[in-house]
Amino acid sequence: MSLISKNEIKTIKSLSDKKYRDSCGLFAVEGEKMVDEALHSGFKVERIFRKEEIGEQAMSRISSFSTPSPVLAVIRKPDHIAISSYGMLDSILSGGGLFMALDKIRDPGNLGTIIRICDWFGVKALFASDDTVDVFNPKVVQATMGAIFRLRFHYTDIGELCKRVVSGNGRVYGTFLEGENIYSAGLDNGLESPSLVVIGNESEGISREIKGLVTDKINIPPYPDGESGSESLNAAVASAVTIAEFRRRLCT
Amino acid sequence: MSLISKNEIKTIKSLSDKKYRDSCGLFAVEGEKMVDEALHSGFKVERIFRKEEIGEQAMSRISSFSTPSPVLAVIRKPDHIAISSYGMLDSILSGGGLFMALDKIRDPGNLGTIIRICDWFGVKALFASDDTVDVFNPKVVQATMGAIFRLRFHYTDIGELCKRVVSGNGRVYGTFLEGENIYSAGLDNGLESPSLVVIGNESEGISREIKGLVTDKINIPPYPDGESGSESLNAAVASAVTIAEFRRRLCT
Repeated sequence: MSLISKNEIKTIKSLSDKKYRDSCGLFAVEGEKMVDEALHSGFKVERIFRKEEIGEQAMSRISSFSTPSPVLAVIRKPDHIAISSYGMLDSILSGGGLFMALDKIRDPGNLGTIIRICDWFGVKALFASDDTVDVFNPKVVQATMGAIFRLRFHYTDIGELCKRVVSGNGRVYGTFLEGENIYSAGLDNGLESPSLVVIGNESEGISREIKGLVTDKINIPPYPDGESGSESLNAAVASAVTIAEFRRRLCT
Repeated sequence: MSLISKNEIKTIKSLSDKKYRDSCGLFAVEGEKMVDEALHSGFKVERIFRKEEIGEQAMSRISSFSTPSPVLAVIRKPDHIAISSYGMLDSILSGGGLFMALDKIRDPGNLGTIIRICDWFGVKALFASDDTVDVFNPKVVQATMGAIFRLRFHYTDIGELCKRVVSGNGRVYGTFLEGENIYSAGLDNGLESPSLVVIGNESEGISREIKGLVTDKINIPPYPDGESGSESLNAAVASAVTIAEFRRRLCT
Protein backbone atom coordinates (compact mmCIF):
# COMPACT_ATOMS: atom_id res chain seq x y z
CA MET A 1 0.00 0.00 0.00
CA SER A 2 1.43 3.35 -1.02
CA LEU A 3 1.49 6.15 1.55
CA ILE A 4 0.65 8.77 -1.09
CA SER A 5 -2.32 8.69 -3.49
CA LYS A 6 -2.32 9.75 -7.14
CA ASN A 7 -4.52 12.68 -6.20
CA GLU A 8 -2.07 13.81 -3.52
CA ILE A 9 0.80 13.65 -6.01
CA LYS A 10 -1.22 15.78 -8.42
CA THR A 11 -2.07 18.32 -5.68
CA ILE A 12 1.52 18.70 -4.51
CA LYS A 13 2.85 19.04 -8.06
CA SER A 14 0.29 21.82 -8.59
CA LEU A 15 1.84 23.80 -5.71
CA SER A 16 4.61 24.89 -8.08
CA ASP A 17 1.87 27.05 -9.69
CA LYS A 18 1.02 30.36 -7.96
CA LYS A 19 -2.66 30.20 -8.90
CA TYR A 20 -3.00 26.85 -7.25
CA ARG A 21 -1.07 27.94 -4.15
CA ASP A 22 -3.39 30.93 -3.84
CA SER A 23 -6.57 28.93 -4.28
CA CYS A 24 -5.72 26.21 -1.77
CA GLY A 25 -3.65 28.34 0.64
CA LEU A 26 -0.74 25.89 0.75
CA PHE A 27 2.91 25.76 -0.30
CA ALA A 28 5.71 23.17 -0.21
CA VAL A 29 9.22 23.12 1.25
CA GLU A 30 11.93 20.49 0.77
CA GLY A 31 14.93 19.20 2.65
CA GLU A 32 15.58 18.12 6.26
CA LYS A 33 16.68 21.56 7.43
CA MET A 34 13.76 23.44 5.89
CA VAL A 35 11.17 20.96 7.18
CA ASP A 36 12.75 21.05 10.62
CA GLU A 37 12.64 24.86 10.65
CA ALA A 38 8.98 24.78 9.55
CA LEU A 39 8.11 22.43 12.42
CA HIS A 40 9.72 24.79 14.91
CA SER A 41 8.01 27.90 13.48
CA GLY A 42 4.55 29.37 13.87
CA PHE A 43 3.59 27.96 10.44
CA LYS A 44 1.12 25.08 10.29
CA VAL A 45 2.68 21.99 8.70
CA GLU A 46 -0.17 20.01 7.08
CA ARG A 47 1.67 16.94 5.78
CA ILE A 48 5.19 15.52 5.60
CA PHE A 49 6.28 13.07 2.91
CA ARG A 50 9.50 11.07 3.27
CA LYS A 51 11.27 9.22 0.48
CA GLU A 52 11.60 6.03 2.54
CA GLU A 53 7.84 6.01 3.06
CA ILE A 54 6.46 7.00 -0.35
CA GLY A 55 9.29 5.66 -2.52
CA GLU A 56 11.80 7.34 -4.77
CA GLN A 57 9.52 7.51 -7.78
CA ALA A 58 6.71 9.35 -5.98
CA MET A 59 9.27 11.66 -4.37
CA SER A 60 10.76 12.60 -7.72
CA ARG A 61 7.25 13.40 -9.00
CA ILE A 62 6.35 15.77 -6.15
CA SER A 63 9.78 17.43 -5.87
CA SER A 64 10.59 20.75 -7.58
CA PHE A 65 14.24 19.76 -7.91
CA SER A 66 16.10 17.69 -10.44
CA THR A 67 17.60 15.77 -7.51
CA PRO A 68 14.62 15.13 -5.20
CA SER A 69 15.02 15.85 -1.52
CA PRO A 70 14.56 13.09 1.10
CA VAL A 71 11.63 14.99 2.64
CA LEU A 72 8.90 17.43 1.55
CA ALA A 73 6.37 19.26 3.72
CA VAL A 74 3.09 20.86 2.70
CA ILE A 75 2.53 24.00 4.75
CA ARG A 76 -0.41 26.35 5.21
CA LYS A 77 0.25 29.91 4.04
CA PRO A 78 -0.06 32.32 6.95
CA ASP A 79 -2.88 34.89 7.07
CA HIS A 80 -2.09 38.58 6.62
CA ILE A 81 0.66 38.14 4.05
CA ALA A 82 -1.28 40.84 2.18
CA ILE A 83 -1.76 43.94 4.31
CA SER A 84 -5.51 44.16 4.91
CA SER A 85 -5.73 47.72 6.22
CA TYR A 86 -3.52 50.78 6.51
CA GLY A 87 -4.11 50.68 10.25
CA MET A 88 -2.21 47.38 10.23
CA LEU A 89 0.64 49.11 8.38
CA ASP A 90 0.78 51.91 10.99
CA SER A 91 0.79 49.36 13.76
CA ILE A 92 3.77 47.47 12.27
CA LEU A 93 5.72 50.74 11.84
CA SER A 94 4.73 52.22 15.18
CA GLY A 95 7.67 50.89 17.22
CA GLY A 96 10.23 52.32 14.78
CA GLY A 97 13.23 50.29 13.63
CA LEU A 98 14.78 49.19 10.37
CA PHE A 99 12.45 48.10 7.53
CA MET A 100 12.94 47.12 3.90
CA ALA A 101 10.65 47.40 0.88
CA LEU A 102 10.95 45.76 -2.55
CA ASP A 103 9.65 47.61 -5.58
CA LYS A 104 8.94 44.92 -8.20
CA ILE A 105 11.67 42.36 -7.55
CA ARG A 106 11.25 39.64 -10.19
CA ASP A 107 13.98 37.08 -9.60
CA PRO A 108 13.03 34.33 -7.09
CA GLY A 109 16.67 33.83 -6.02
CA ASN A 110 16.97 37.55 -5.24
CA LEU A 111 13.81 37.59 -3.11
CA GLY A 112 14.88 34.49 -1.19
CA THR A 113 18.37 35.89 -0.59
CA ILE A 114 16.96 39.26 0.56
CA ILE A 115 14.70 37.47 3.08
CA ARG A 116 17.80 35.70 4.43
CA ILE A 117 19.68 39.04 4.63
CA CYS A 118 16.78 40.74 6.49
CA ASP A 119 16.63 37.88 8.96
CA TRP A 120 20.40 38.00 9.58
CA PHE A 121 20.51 41.76 10.13
CA GLY A 122 17.34 41.97 12.22
CA VAL A 123 15.14 43.93 9.80
CA LYS A 124 11.77 44.24 11.59
CA ALA A 125 9.63 43.63 8.51
CA LEU A 126 10.12 43.22 4.77
CA PHE A 127 7.43 44.63 2.46
CA ALA A 128 7.00 43.91 -1.24
CA SER A 129 4.89 45.45 -4.00
CA ASP A 130 2.11 43.25 -5.35
CA ASP A 131 4.02 42.81 -8.61
CA THR A 132 7.03 41.32 -6.79
CA VAL A 133 7.56 37.58 -7.36
CA ASP A 134 5.46 35.31 -5.10
CA VAL A 135 7.17 34.61 -1.78
CA PHE A 136 5.85 31.01 -1.78
CA ASN A 137 7.42 30.20 -5.16
CA PRO A 138 9.58 27.09 -4.47
CA LYS A 139 12.78 28.82 -5.61
CA VAL A 140 12.15 31.72 -3.22
CA VAL A 141 11.33 29.46 -0.30
CA GLN A 142 14.45 27.32 -0.76
CA ALA A 143 16.77 30.34 -1.21
CA THR A 144 15.65 31.71 2.19
CA MET A 145 17.31 28.71 3.89
CA GLY A 146 14.56 28.80 6.52
CA ALA A 147 14.49 32.57 7.10
CA ILE A 148 10.99 32.65 5.56
CA PHE A 149 9.74 31.04 8.79
CA ARG A 150 11.18 33.82 10.95
CA LEU A 151 10.95 37.11 9.07
CA ARG A 152 7.83 39.30 9.09
CA PHE A 153 6.87 39.66 5.41
CA HIS A 154 3.94 41.49 3.76
CA TYR A 155 2.72 42.43 0.31
CA THR A 156 1.45 46.01 0.27
CA ASP A 157 1.26 49.26 -1.70
CA ILE A 158 4.85 50.56 -1.39
CA GLY A 159 3.80 54.16 -2.19
CA GLU A 160 1.34 54.18 0.69
CA LEU A 161 3.96 52.56 2.92
CA CYS A 162 6.49 55.32 2.13
CA LYS A 163 3.90 58.00 2.93
CA ARG A 164 3.15 56.42 6.27
CA VAL A 165 6.84 56.11 7.15
CA VAL A 166 7.30 59.84 6.45
CA SER A 167 4.16 60.86 8.34
CA GLY A 168 5.54 58.88 11.29
CA ASN A 169 8.71 61.05 11.24
CA GLY A 170 10.65 58.27 9.56
CA ARG A 171 12.98 58.32 6.54
CA VAL A 172 12.75 56.53 3.19
CA TYR A 173 16.16 55.54 1.70
CA GLY A 174 16.66 54.49 -1.90
CA THR A 175 19.81 53.71 -3.92
CA PHE A 176 20.39 55.86 -7.02
CA LEU A 177 23.48 56.52 -9.15
CA GLU A 178 23.21 60.21 -8.23
CA GLY A 179 22.66 59.44 -4.53
CA GLU A 180 24.96 60.48 -1.72
CA ASN A 181 27.86 58.15 -0.84
CA ILE A 182 26.38 55.71 1.68
CA TYR A 183 29.47 56.01 3.92
CA SER A 184 29.15 59.77 4.30
CA ALA A 185 25.33 60.03 4.07
CA GLY A 186 23.42 60.79 7.26
CA LEU A 187 21.85 57.45 8.04
CA ASP A 188 21.95 58.17 11.73
CA ASN A 189 18.38 59.35 12.04
CA GLY A 190 18.06 56.81 14.83
CA LEU A 191 15.60 53.97 14.82
CA GLU A 192 12.99 55.33 17.21
CA SER A 193 11.06 56.33 14.10
CA PRO A 194 11.02 53.91 11.14
CA SER A 195 13.88 53.81 8.59
CA LEU A 196 12.76 52.18 5.35
CA VAL A 197 15.25 51.02 2.69
CA VAL A 198 13.64 50.62 -0.76
CA ILE A 199 15.23 48.28 -3.32
CA GLY A 200 14.16 48.61 -6.95
CA ASN A 201 13.56 46.22 -9.83
CA GLU A 202 16.58 44.30 -11.23
CA SER A 203 16.69 46.14 -14.56
CA GLU A 204 14.67 49.34 -14.06
CA GLY A 205 15.60 50.27 -10.48
CA ILE A 206 13.16 52.16 -8.27
CA SER A 207 9.98 53.20 -10.11
CA ARG A 208 9.18 56.86 -10.78
CA GLU A 209 6.28 56.96 -8.33
CA ILE A 210 8.39 55.63 -5.46
CA LYS A 211 11.40 57.78 -6.40
CA GLY A 212 9.29 60.86 -5.61
CA LEU A 213 8.68 59.53 -2.11
CA VAL A 214 12.30 58.72 -1.24
CA THR A 215 13.59 61.23 1.33
CA ASP A 216 17.28 60.20 1.17
CA LYS A 217 18.97 59.15 -2.07
CA ILE A 218 22.05 57.09 -1.34
CA ASN A 219 24.66 55.30 -3.42
CA ILE A 220 27.12 52.45 -2.88
CA PRO A 221 30.33 53.85 -4.34
CA PRO A 222 32.22 51.72 -6.87
CA TYR A 223 36.01 51.60 -6.94
CA PRO A 224 38.19 53.25 -8.11
CA ASP A 225 37.22 56.93 -8.15
CA GLY A 226 33.48 56.60 -8.16
CA GLU A 227 33.38 54.65 -11.37
CA SER A 228 33.41 51.05 -12.52
CA GLY A 229 32.65 49.16 -15.71
CA SER A 230 29.61 47.66 -14.01
CA GLU A 231 26.49 49.80 -14.07
CA SER A 232 24.97 48.38 -10.93
CA LEU A 233 25.12 45.74 -8.26
CA ASN A 234 22.74 42.79 -8.08
CA ALA A 235 19.57 43.70 -6.08
CA ALA A 236 20.33 41.28 -3.23
CA VAL A 237 23.93 42.51 -3.02
CA ALA A 238 22.81 46.17 -2.88
CA SER A 239 20.35 45.21 -0.12
CA ALA A 240 23.09 43.49 1.87
CA VAL A 241 25.66 46.28 1.63
CA THR A 242 23.07 48.94 2.55
CA ILE A 243 21.56 47.07 5.51
CA ALA A 244 25.02 46.08 6.77
CA GLU A 245 26.06 49.76 6.76
CA PHE A 246 22.93 50.75 8.73
CA ARG A 247 23.75 48.06 11.27
CA ARG A 248 27.38 49.09 11.51
CA ARG A 249 26.40 52.68 12.31
CA LEU A 250 23.48 51.96 14.57
CA CYS A 251 24.82 48.99 16.52
CA THR A 252 28.51 49.32 17.07
CA MET B 1 19.23 29.78 -47.49
CA SER B 2 19.68 29.56 -43.74
CA LEU B 3 22.51 31.51 -42.13
CA ILE B 4 23.25 28.71 -39.69
CA SER B 5 23.96 25.06 -40.50
CA LYS B 6 22.75 22.00 -38.61
CA ASN B 7 26.33 21.34 -37.59
CA GLU B 8 26.70 24.84 -36.20
CA ILE B 9 23.49 24.45 -34.20
CA LYS B 10 24.83 21.21 -32.78
CA THR B 11 28.20 22.79 -31.90
CA ILE B 12 26.64 25.78 -30.13
CA LYS B 13 24.21 23.60 -28.17
CA SER B 14 27.20 21.55 -27.03
CA LEU B 15 28.75 24.66 -25.45
CA SER B 16 26.38 24.24 -22.50
CA ASP B 17 28.58 21.23 -21.64
CA LYS B 18 31.88 21.95 -19.84
CA LYS B 19 33.72 19.08 -21.53
CA TYR B 20 32.86 20.47 -24.92
CA ARG B 21 33.77 24.04 -23.94
CA ASP B 22 37.15 22.78 -22.73
CA SER B 23 37.88 20.73 -25.83
CA CYS B 24 37.02 23.46 -28.36
CA GLY B 25 38.08 26.48 -26.26
CA LEU B 26 34.82 28.37 -26.85
CA PHE B 27 31.84 29.60 -24.83
CA ALA B 28 28.59 31.43 -25.58
CA VAL B 29 26.99 34.63 -24.29
CA GLU B 30 23.49 35.93 -24.97
CA GLY B 31 21.70 39.27 -25.05
CA GLU B 32 22.46 42.66 -26.65
CA LYS B 33 24.28 44.04 -23.62
CA MET B 34 26.49 40.99 -23.10
CA VAL B 35 27.42 40.72 -26.78
CA ASP B 36 28.15 44.44 -26.89
CA GLU B 37 30.42 44.17 -23.83
CA ALA B 38 32.20 41.19 -25.41
CA LEU B 39 32.86 43.19 -28.58
CA HIS B 40 34.41 46.01 -26.55
CA SER B 41 36.57 43.68 -24.46
CA GLY B 42 39.86 41.93 -25.08
CA PHE B 43 37.99 38.67 -25.75
CA LYS B 44 37.88 37.32 -29.29
CA VAL B 45 34.31 37.07 -30.61
CA GLU B 46 34.25 34.26 -33.18
CA ARG B 47 30.65 34.41 -34.43
CA ILE B 48 27.45 36.36 -33.77
CA PHE B 49 24.01 34.92 -34.47
CA ARG B 50 20.93 37.17 -34.59
CA LYS B 51 17.33 36.01 -34.43
CA GLU B 52 16.32 38.07 -37.47
CA GLU B 53 19.03 36.36 -39.51
CA ILE B 54 18.83 32.72 -38.42
CA GLY B 55 15.13 32.62 -37.50
CA GLU B 56 13.32 32.11 -34.21
CA GLN B 57 13.41 28.34 -34.38
CA ALA B 58 17.19 28.08 -34.78
CA MET B 59 17.64 30.74 -32.08
CA SER B 60 15.54 28.78 -29.61
CA ARG B 61 17.65 25.70 -30.35
CA ILE B 62 21.01 27.35 -29.67
CA SER B 63 19.85 29.43 -26.67
CA SER B 64 20.36 28.29 -23.07
CA PHE B 65 17.24 30.16 -21.96
CA SER B 66 13.58 29.28 -22.00
CA THR B 67 12.96 32.65 -23.67
CA PRO B 68 15.69 32.88 -26.35
CA SER B 69 17.68 36.13 -26.58
CA PRO B 70 17.71 38.17 -29.82
CA VAL B 71 21.45 37.63 -30.16
CA LEU B 72 24.10 35.05 -29.20
CA ALA B 73 27.87 35.27 -29.58
CA VAL B 74 30.42 32.47 -29.62
CA ILE B 75 33.60 33.63 -27.90
CA ARG B 76 37.08 32.20 -27.57
CA LYS B 77 38.09 31.38 -24.00
CA PRO B 78 41.13 33.45 -22.99
CA ASP B 79 44.47 31.77 -22.32
CA HIS B 80 45.85 31.62 -18.80
CA ILE B 81 42.51 31.09 -17.05
CA ALA B 82 44.37 28.29 -15.28
CA ILE B 83 47.53 29.56 -13.58
CA SER B 84 50.41 27.91 -15.43
CA SER B 85 53.23 28.63 -13.00
CA TYR B 86 53.69 29.93 -9.48
CA GLY B 87 55.86 32.66 -10.92
CA MET B 88 52.74 33.94 -12.67
CA LEU B 89 50.94 33.94 -9.30
CA ASP B 90 53.75 35.96 -7.69
CA SER B 91 53.66 38.42 -10.56
CA ILE B 92 49.90 39.02 -10.17
CA LEU B 93 50.27 39.55 -6.42
CA SER B 94 53.44 41.64 -6.66
CA GLY B 95 51.77 45.05 -6.85
CA GLY B 96 49.71 44.44 -3.71
CA GLY B 97 46.00 45.36 -3.56
CA LEU B 98 42.74 43.62 -2.76
CA PHE B 99 42.23 40.04 -4.00
CA MET B 100 39.54 37.41 -3.52
CA ALA B 101 39.69 33.61 -3.59
CA LEU B 102 36.85 31.09 -3.79
CA ASP B 103 37.26 27.74 -2.06
CA LYS B 104 34.88 25.35 -3.89
CA ILE B 105 31.93 27.62 -4.81
CA ARG B 106 29.36 25.38 -6.48
CA ASP B 107 26.39 27.58 -7.40
CA PRO B 108 26.71 29.27 -10.84
CA GLY B 109 24.58 32.25 -9.73
CA ASN B 110 26.89 32.82 -6.75
CA LEU B 111 30.04 32.76 -8.90
CA GLY B 112 28.52 35.15 -11.45
CA THR B 113 27.35 37.54 -8.73
CA ILE B 114 30.76 37.45 -7.01
CA ILE B 115 32.48 38.34 -10.30
CA ARG B 116 30.12 41.33 -10.59
CA ILE B 117 30.91 42.35 -6.98
CA CYS B 118 34.69 42.11 -7.56
CA ASP B 119 34.38 44.24 -10.69
CA TRP B 120 32.29 46.88 -8.87
CA PHE B 121 34.64 47.16 -5.91
CA GLY B 122 37.85 47.05 -7.91
CA VAL B 123 39.22 43.71 -6.72
CA LYS B 124 42.47 43.22 -8.66
CA ALA B 125 42.00 39.51 -9.36
CA LEU B 126 39.58 36.75 -8.39
CA PHE B 127 41.00 33.25 -7.91
CA ALA B 128 39.02 30.02 -7.66
CA SER B 129 39.91 26.46 -6.67
CA ASP B 130 39.80 23.91 -9.48
CA ASP B 131 36.67 22.34 -7.96
CA THR B 132 34.76 25.65 -8.19
CA VAL B 133 32.00 25.72 -10.82
CA ASP B 134 33.20 26.52 -14.37
CA VAL B 135 33.34 30.26 -15.04
CA PHE B 136 32.15 29.72 -18.64
CA ASN B 137 28.98 27.91 -17.56
CA PRO B 138 26.14 29.90 -19.24
CA LYS B 139 24.46 30.69 -15.89
CA VAL B 140 27.73 32.10 -14.50
CA VAL B 141 28.42 34.17 -17.60
CA GLN B 142 24.94 35.70 -17.66
CA ALA B 143 24.91 36.46 -13.91
CA THR B 144 28.11 38.52 -14.30
CA MET B 145 26.19 41.06 -16.44
CA GLY B 146 29.34 41.63 -18.46
CA ALA B 147 31.81 41.83 -15.58
CA ILE B 148 33.39 38.58 -16.82
CA PHE B 149 34.89 40.61 -19.67
CA ARG B 150 36.61 43.03 -17.30
CA LEU B 151 37.69 41.13 -14.19
CA ARG B 152 40.97 39.24 -13.96
CA PHE B 153 39.98 35.65 -13.10
CA HIS B 154 42.12 32.52 -12.58
CA TYR B 155 41.75 28.94 -11.44
CA THR B 156 44.59 27.95 -9.13
CA ASP B 157 45.59 26.04 -6.01
CA ILE B 158 44.15 28.24 -3.23
CA GLY B 159 46.48 26.76 -0.60
CA GLU B 160 49.53 27.71 -2.64
CA LEU B 161 48.02 31.15 -3.28
CA CYS B 162 47.56 31.75 0.47
CA LYS B 163 51.16 30.75 1.16
CA ARG B 164 52.44 33.15 -1.48
CA VAL B 165 50.29 36.01 -0.12
CA VAL B 166 51.76 35.46 3.34
CA SER B 167 55.34 35.16 2.07
CA GLY B 168 54.77 38.50 0.29
CA ASN B 169 53.91 40.12 3.67
CA GLY B 170 50.20 40.03 2.85
CA ARG B 171 47.22 38.89 4.92
CA VAL B 172 44.68 36.13 4.28
CA TYR B 173 41.16 36.91 5.59
CA GLY B 174 38.41 34.32 6.00
CA THR B 175 34.92 34.50 7.53
CA PHE B 176 34.24 32.17 10.46
CA LEU B 177 31.55 32.12 13.16
CA GLU B 178 34.29 32.49 15.77
CA GLY B 179 36.03 35.28 13.81
CA GLU B 180 36.54 38.83 15.02
CA ASN B 181 33.76 41.35 14.30
CA ILE B 182 34.58 42.71 10.85
CA TYR B 183 33.85 46.28 12.01
CA SER B 184 36.41 46.18 14.80
CA ALA B 185 38.91 43.80 13.17
CA GLY B 186 42.18 45.26 11.91
CA LEU B 187 41.67 45.22 8.17
CA ASP B 188 43.89 48.24 7.77
CA ASN B 189 47.04 46.39 6.89
CA GLY B 190 47.18 48.65 3.85
CA LEU B 191 47.16 47.44 0.30
CA GLU B 192 50.83 47.81 -0.56
CA SER B 193 51.12 44.10 0.16
CA PRO B 194 48.28 41.81 -0.99
CA SER B 195 45.09 41.37 1.07
CA LEU B 196 43.26 38.18 0.11
CA VAL B 197 39.65 37.49 1.16
CA VAL B 198 38.76 33.78 1.02
CA ILE B 199 35.10 32.74 0.61
CA GLY B 200 34.18 29.12 1.39
CA ASN B 201 31.79 26.57 -0.05
CA GLU B 202 28.03 27.27 0.29
CA SER B 203 27.34 24.50 2.78
CA GLU B 204 30.72 23.57 4.26
CA GLY B 205 32.44 26.96 4.46
CA ILE B 206 36.22 27.24 4.16
CA SER B 207 37.96 23.86 3.95
CA ARG B 208 40.23 22.62 6.74
CA GLU B 209 43.41 22.96 4.68
CA ILE B 210 42.70 26.61 3.84
CA LYS B 211 41.51 27.42 7.37
CA GLY B 212 45.02 26.66 8.60
CA LEU B 213 46.43 29.26 6.20
CA VAL B 214 44.03 32.10 7.11
CA THR B 215 45.90 34.79 9.06
CA ASP B 216 42.83 36.82 10.10
CA LYS B 217 39.52 35.18 11.03
CA ILE B 218 36.68 37.68 10.67
CA ASN B 219 32.91 37.57 11.12
CA ILE B 220 29.96 39.61 9.85
CA PRO B 221 27.93 40.16 13.03
CA PRO B 222 24.23 39.29 12.92
CA TYR B 223 21.64 41.43 14.73
CA PRO B 224 20.55 41.61 17.48
CA ASP B 225 23.23 40.84 20.06
CA GLY B 226 25.49 38.69 17.99
CA GLU B 227 22.84 36.11 17.20
CA SER B 228 20.20 35.42 14.59
CA GLY B 229 18.06 32.46 13.59
CA SER B 230 20.05 32.20 10.36
CA GLU B 231 23.26 30.25 10.57
CA SER B 232 25.00 32.04 7.74
CA LEU B 233 24.74 34.48 4.88
CA ASN B 234 24.72 33.45 1.23
CA ALA B 235 28.29 33.22 -0.18
CA ALA B 236 27.84 36.15 -2.59
CA VAL B 237 26.29 38.30 0.16
CA ALA B 238 29.17 37.54 2.55
CA SER B 239 31.61 38.46 -0.24
CA ALA B 240 29.84 41.77 -0.86
CA VAL B 241 29.62 42.85 2.79
CA THR B 242 33.29 41.95 3.39
CA ILE B 243 34.69 43.64 0.28
CA ALA B 244 32.49 46.72 0.85
CA GLU B 245 33.91 47.05 4.37
CA PHE B 246 37.49 46.82 3.05
CA ARG B 247 36.70 49.54 0.52
CA ARG B 248 35.03 51.74 3.12
CA ARG B 249 38.12 51.60 5.35
CA LEU B 250 40.74 51.85 2.64
CA CYS B 251 39.11 54.41 0.33
CA THR B 252 37.17 56.97 2.31
